[in-house]
Amino acid sequence: MPVPNRNGLEIVSIDVKDVRFPTSLGSHGSDALHTDPNYSCAYVTTTTGNGKQGFGLTFTCGRGTEIIVLTIRSMKKFIIGKNAADIFADFAGFWRTITNDSQMRWIGPEKGVAHLAAAAILNSLWDLWARLENKPLWRLLVDMEPEELVSTIDFRYITDVITKEEAIKLLKDKQAGKDERVKYLMQHGYPAYTTQVGWLGYSDELVQSLCDKYLKLGFKFFKVKVGVNFEDDYRRCSAVRKCIGPNNVLMVDANQAWSVNEAIEWMKKLAPLKPMWIEEPTSPDDILGHAAISKALAPYNIGVATGEMCANRVMFKQFLQSGGMQYCQIDSARIGGVNEILSVYLMAEKLKVKVCPHAGGVGLCEMVQHLQYWDFASVSCTMQDRLIEYVDQQHEHFVDPCVVENAKYLAPKQPGYSTEFLPGILDRFAYPNGSEWRQMIKDGIFPPPDEAELVNV
Amino acid sequence: MPVPNRNGLEIVSIDVKDVRFPTSLGSHGSDALHTDPNYSCAYVTTTTGNGKQGFGLTFTCGRGTEIIVLTIRSMKKFIIGKNAADIFADFAGFWRTITNDSQMRWIGPEKGVAHLAAAAILNSLWDLWARLENKPLWRLLVDMEPEELVSTIDFRYITDVITKEEAIKLLKDKQAGKDERVKYLMQHGYPAYTTQVGWLGYSDELVQSLCDKYLKLGFKFFKVKVGVNFEDDYRRCSAVRKCIGPNNVLMVDANQAWSVNEAIEWMKKLAPLKPMWIEEPTSPDDILGHAAISKALAPYNIGVATGEMCANRVMFKQFLQSGGMQYCQIDSARIGGVNEILSVYLMAEKLKVKVCPHAGGVGLCEMVQHLQYWDFASVSCTMQDRLIEYVDQQHEHFVDPCVVENAKYLAPKQPGYSTEFLPGILDRFAYPNGSEWRQMIKDGIFPPPDEAELVNV
Repeated sequence: MPVPNRNGLEIVSIDVKDVRFPTSLGSHGSDALHTDPNYSCAYVTTTTGNGKQGFGLTFTCGRGTEIIVLTIRSMKKFIIGKNAADIFADFAGFWRTITNDSQMRWIGPEKGVAHLAAAAILNSLWDLWARLENKPLWRLLVDMEPEELVSTIDFRYITDVITKEEAIKLLKDKQAGKDERVKYLMQHGYPAYTTQVGWLGYSDELVQSLCDKYLKLGFKFFKVKVGVNFEDDYRRCSAVRKCIGPNNVLMVDANQAWSVNEAIEWMKKLAPLKPMWIEEPTSPDDILGHAAISKALAPYNIGVATGEMCANRVMFKQFLQSGGMQYCQIDSARIGGVNEILSVYLMAEKLKVKVCPHAGGVGLCEMVQHLQYWDFASVSCTMQDRLIEYVDQQHEHFVDPCVVENAKYLAPKQPGYSTEFLPGILDRFAYPNGSEWRQMIKDGIFPPPDEAELVNV
Repeated sequence: MPVPNRNGLEIVSIDVKDVRFPTSLGSHGSDALHTDPNYSCAYVTTTTGNGKQGFGLTFTCGRGTEIIVLTIRSMKKFIIGKNAADIFADFAGFWRTITNDSQMRWIGPEKGVAHLAAAAILNSLWDLWARLENKPLWRLLVDMEPEELVSTIDFRYITDVITKEEAIKLLKDKQAGKDERVKYLMQHGYPAYTTQVGWLGYSDELVQSLCDKYLKLGFKFFKVKVGVNFEDDYRRCSAVRKCIGPNNVLMVDANQAWSVNEAIEWMKKLAPLKPMWIEEPTSPDDILGHAAISKALAPYNIGVATGEMCANRVMFKQFLQSGGMQYCQIDSARIGGVNEILSVYLMAEKLKVKVCPHAGGVGLCEMVQHLQYWDFASVSCTMQDRLIEYVDQQHEHFVDPCVVENAKYLAPKQPGYSTEFLPGILDRFAYPNGSEWRQMIKDGIFPPPDEAELVNV
């Protein structure tokens, strides 16, 4: 039983910081709808009476991070004084406490700001738990008995697809061969694809030189942003296809740019370039729209991928049920933390949909590798047509950054969820008073913060 | 053309207040998941250079209102300095500006906290516009040419159900007889139903005496909260049915208490009491679940009603498309203000689903009457099986409260959207420093605010 001894584990503080990196200066991360992101996060440090700490974050794009930070401050009252061991012993119950407070749930429920804030807190608790067990998170998950793992999940609203009992049975049926799969992961890592070659703001020359670079690094899967101008898309995708050849894989990502019919027409015209998937063709809330697009594009062998902005397990459930998603792109920071993500993996396995997590941003690669490792060891038990997104940005800020070699995520080895920032990062990048921001604002590179952005400092 | 002259209409301030009423003291508004709401709102006052003002709000349940207030403060930068006349001339464009900022949309998009905040701002602008035209909002809407009205709507993601051109044609086709319908509304009002008889926290005696009271007031439709304990529900609903007789109408409301299958089973057992609808049987995000429940309950003549927590037009679109909603309960404060609500009415009309708005809370009855008046005059042009919810609470705070007589909402006559608080309300109920709150906190009736609840004061 992995729940630790209670002594000293009462939670005495939840600290939260608004941390922003000035990525908009290089058009990194630019896409059809997010033209100038400053990759950012709300960063939570949870501390126990005996001085143990857990670190958790939720990813943001700059403006508005102050709102997530305040929401986490508002949620402190549900956590401070609770014992972490008690939380882990009834994690599903605790999860419901912070995601469904009888008054606060009105401003969600289980979506948007409120759920992002909950995710940061929950991720810090999972990091704490893994550290207490002296294991990387994926090993904590893999080593849990099926009953223990499933006890962390709130099954409300998903029992029409999977019940607690079915989830336990599913995990038990996959126990055989687990040790061999863990060994395989330790030796071979997990396949990655790159999104680095085709951000929308990049020039054609940069796209080509990046294709060459990532081919040399061993990548076989390449994702390109599309959706603003068809001729541009066709030219850029053609260039990538020419560079990577017919045997490597191209994926495209519209970041919600289109209506349903527009997505179908646009992708039919891109079909000759043989993309494996179209990602986020339309509104992240449009389940029936994604199902219609999936159906229309199936004859072209183009699958539909989505999930990075999918609000919660209930939305994922329907995408999985409806045939609206051939690739399930869970995001480690959006839905309600590890607890809720586990339920999505279990539903995806039950309904035989491949999970290819969203990553990039700040800390998403670091976190999501743990989840996908668990999936291979304990849930789907296969890597067939499964990949983890990889973007080579913002890793330098972390104590235990992900390591990708020969296009494989190598096994995380340090205890925890790989979410701790290096010393000094908060001093430099806390917004707006970190030293880097003070300098950039002084130099006129960015405008000063507005009054709302100052409430948490 | 109802867009006013630009002179003096630059927006010089957006003021926002956290306003809470201590309704939890009387179990008013209590239901299966919201056991102790303090009906509250984020209250926006928008002021132009020439001193004109618009008032707008979004409803909340107490804790967490500080988060909405901060979000509105964060959105000020998108509005201050803009000219209100320019906003009205391209209202759809402005709508997209504040709901889809390239960085902030990550923390939504178009849902939860971010969208509630946008709604409060947008509602204040519609109130301003109607005041500038010296008309109640419903008359402003009714008097607009179809092209003008439709120009306020962002059709992104809904063109597979209705395009701008179809919406204009729909409105044009309904122009005939509009004057007569306006006259009818002025003379007869619009039918209301009461939710006042069966809040979950009420005793059986109180339920009975309230049924008697509302029957005497002329009501024919009565809604009862259910979902925690079946025996309790059956007893309470039986009492209401006995009191109102077989010819009046009973509706029941589970406020998201159930899973899909549980909803079906529970309602089959309540079917002998002949409820007209089951409201919010399960997660407000579960479109396919509502469709399954609708299908299972159709043989029992029980419709499914939902919408008060439906996040945006894309979710409404799918509820309407899928047969998951026989009664569309738009909420005047949740989705992105009047602009987005208009699109839901138009989709509902196209797909022949009845709109019966959610109301109650703070200001919801005041606002939603305007929308439903417009629907009768300009869109569905019928009252058949359509009703506005009515809860007789929190009206005393408003300058222009709704007036319900003989179970009819009488026509609002004052200019605006009926959203202005009386002088003194902010001094008394602003949280936590209004005089009423200071006294209640001093008396130990409520705990003092936490640090997060103090950031906006």
